[in-house]
Amino acid sequence: MMLNQFLQIFLPVIEAELVAAVNRADGDRLADLHNILAYHMGWEGEGAGPEARGKRIRPMLTLLVTAAAGGEWRSALPAACAIELIHNFSLIHDDIEDNSPQRRGRLSIWNRWGIAQATNAGDAMFTLAHLELLHLIDFLPTSKVLQAVNLLQQTCLHLTQGQYLDISFEDRQDLTEADYWEMISGKTGGLMAACTELGALAASAQEIICQAYQLFGRSLGLAFQVQDDLLGIWGDNQLTGKSAESDLITGKKTLPILFGINQRGKFYNRWLRGPISPDEALEVTHLLEIDGGRFYAQEQVDQLTNQALEALELAQPIGDAGVALHELAEQLLHRQA
Amino acid sequence: MMLNQFLQIFLPVIEAELVAAVNRADGDRLADLHNILAYHMGWEGEGAGPEARGKRIRPMLTLLVTAAAGGEWRSALPAACAIELIHNFSLIHDDIEDNSPQRRGRLSIWNRWGIAQATNAGDAMFTLAHLELLHLIDFLPTSKVLQAVNLLQQTCLHLTQGQYLDISFEDRQDLTEADYWEMISGKTGGLMAACTELGALAASAQEIICQAYQLFGRSLGLAFQVQDDLLGIWGDNQLTGKSAESDLITGKKTLPILFGINQRGKFYNRWLRGPISPDEALEVTHLLEIDGGRFYAQEQVDQLTNQALEALELAQPIGDAGVALHELAEQLLHRQA
Repeated sequence: MMLNQFLQIFLPVIEAELVAAVNRADGDRLADLHNILAYHMGWEGEGAGPEARGKRIRPMLTLLVTAAAGGEWRSALPAACAIELIHNFSLIHDDIEDNSPQRRGRLSIWNRWGIAQATNAGDAMFTLAHLELLHLIDFLPTSKVLQAVNLLQQTCLHLTQGQYLDISFEDRQDLTEADYWEMISGKTGGLMAACTELGALAASAQEIICQAYQLFGRSLGLAFQVQDDLLGIWGDNQLTGKSAESDLITGKKTLPILFGINQRGKFYNRWLRGPISPDEALEVTHLLEIDGGRFYAQEQVDQLTNQALEALELAQPIGDAGVALHELAEQLLHRQA
Repeated sequence: MMLNQFLQIFLPVIEAELVAAVNRADGDRLADLHNILAYHMGWEGEGAGPEARGKRIRPMLTLLVTAAAGGEWRSALPAACAIELIHNFSLIHDDIEDNSPQRRGRLSIWNRWGIAQATNAGDAMFTLAHLELLHLIDFLPTSKVLQAVNLLQQTCLHLTQGQYLDISFEDRQDLTEADYWEMISGKTGGLMAACTELGALAASAQEIICQAYQLFGRSLGLAFQVQDDLLGIWGDNQLTGKSAESDLITGKKTLPILFGINQRGKFYNRWLRGPISPDEALEVTHLLEIDGGRFYAQEQVDQLTNQALEALELAQPIGDAGVALHELAEQLLHRQA
């Protein structure tokens, strides 16, 4: 597989650059702040290691796009790492906002260091991301760097708008599908769109190519999120109850559940009666499947996947990186966990 | 007074620009997010009005510096407002981190909308600040804008480093004065230094002039903070117990208190015995004064004030704005509440 060869080259370089970016927060009297950030990145503390780091999909996507758009992938490294840091900033704050005690099998930051330090550590990560991006100046003209700065800040604004919707959805009973798409467009969709658009921008690709890559990233991100929603109910772990709890139990309003609610059928009637216990989860999962929630969400994944692949074709990716980009997209959309 | 004439011209323009900056977060389905931000800025909701807005000292400082450095003050407006938004972002998150129920006499954001929405609203304000700064492009060449972007991000990194120290100080018994200066250098000192340096940068002042204004802002900010520490114990409100509680009661480790602790005298002995009740506050205030905490802090304010005024002289401010800048510094350093 072509993708594996790129992973072997890119991943160590990405990791080293991320380490350098996070080290900028270190200094006299600041070792503990650095520890918090390094713990979150999976480099330090209990349970540190590759499992705790996530897959670094976003920076991989950026570097592959730069290469596939005919650019020098190293010149996109600050952009690739900036997005990964933004992603990690949002995880630190999301865990506070969702009251999630764990992240990647370890204690979440607020659970280990308290809400005060976690809020501030997220802010530090946010700033480090933007500082990292400015290192594009070593490779690109100032006007391109400013364009990238603006693009990343706009992405962050959409991220906070999507997160606002996500938090407010918890208390709302009248959600439409349009609300859902708006929410994930700001979050997963927007962040992946920024990955690919910044990759194309770092390759100094033409505007029309940048837009095609942007659409590729956005569609891929949306498909990825709906796939995640499906795995949140019908994933191996959820069905067997081995580790993570089904979204039916936590009550998260994902696409299959929203669709099920709006069918006003048997699933809806059960949903109205209040929280679903782990014992009931399998039965309610069947009700949702009968009412079409699984089929509908899968249809959306398929449509969005087609959109993503069409956009990728429009972008005319070249060389081995282009092949690897296809592989990465396929892998993201056909994962089982 | 010259300053009043500038306040009358600048304040409405600053306020209009801030409104426009915050409106960028608005949109379909996002009215409530906008409401949170507009409430915090003092424009909407219960208790809205000038009292709820703060004095907009920071943007005033930036615009006056630009004019006093021979520039066109309007060209610094995005920088001035960006800093004010950063200041307000930090207040939203500080209130979460300090568990403060009130801000400027009204419910703090987390207290009114919950920690989840407050954390996210702070993030939105943070992003809006950086987006506002990018509007410098209407007035300055791209290289200057990038310099400003870098300066503001570095300021934000120091802000989070200072805030990390501030939070960690709560649990520490071995604080030195050096810890204190490090902390306020990242917070009040760093933010005011950015105000004045960005003002000079927007005027395209020479590097040596920019540095003099930076030192002016930093010294002014440090003096302002120590003055604040003094008012937190010997301010009218604290002595009469009319509104805010004395820092002696809340146990905040400000400069006079740190100095008192390090004297190992009568104040220290009382401090060791645990929390100070409102009934005791006046008596313990006297102990601290006898042990030299008030005199020492006042000495620091005086020294820093001299440093600030010397730096201002080095910067050679011109015209009416230069006179107003002096007045603003004097006003900040001789306030009684």
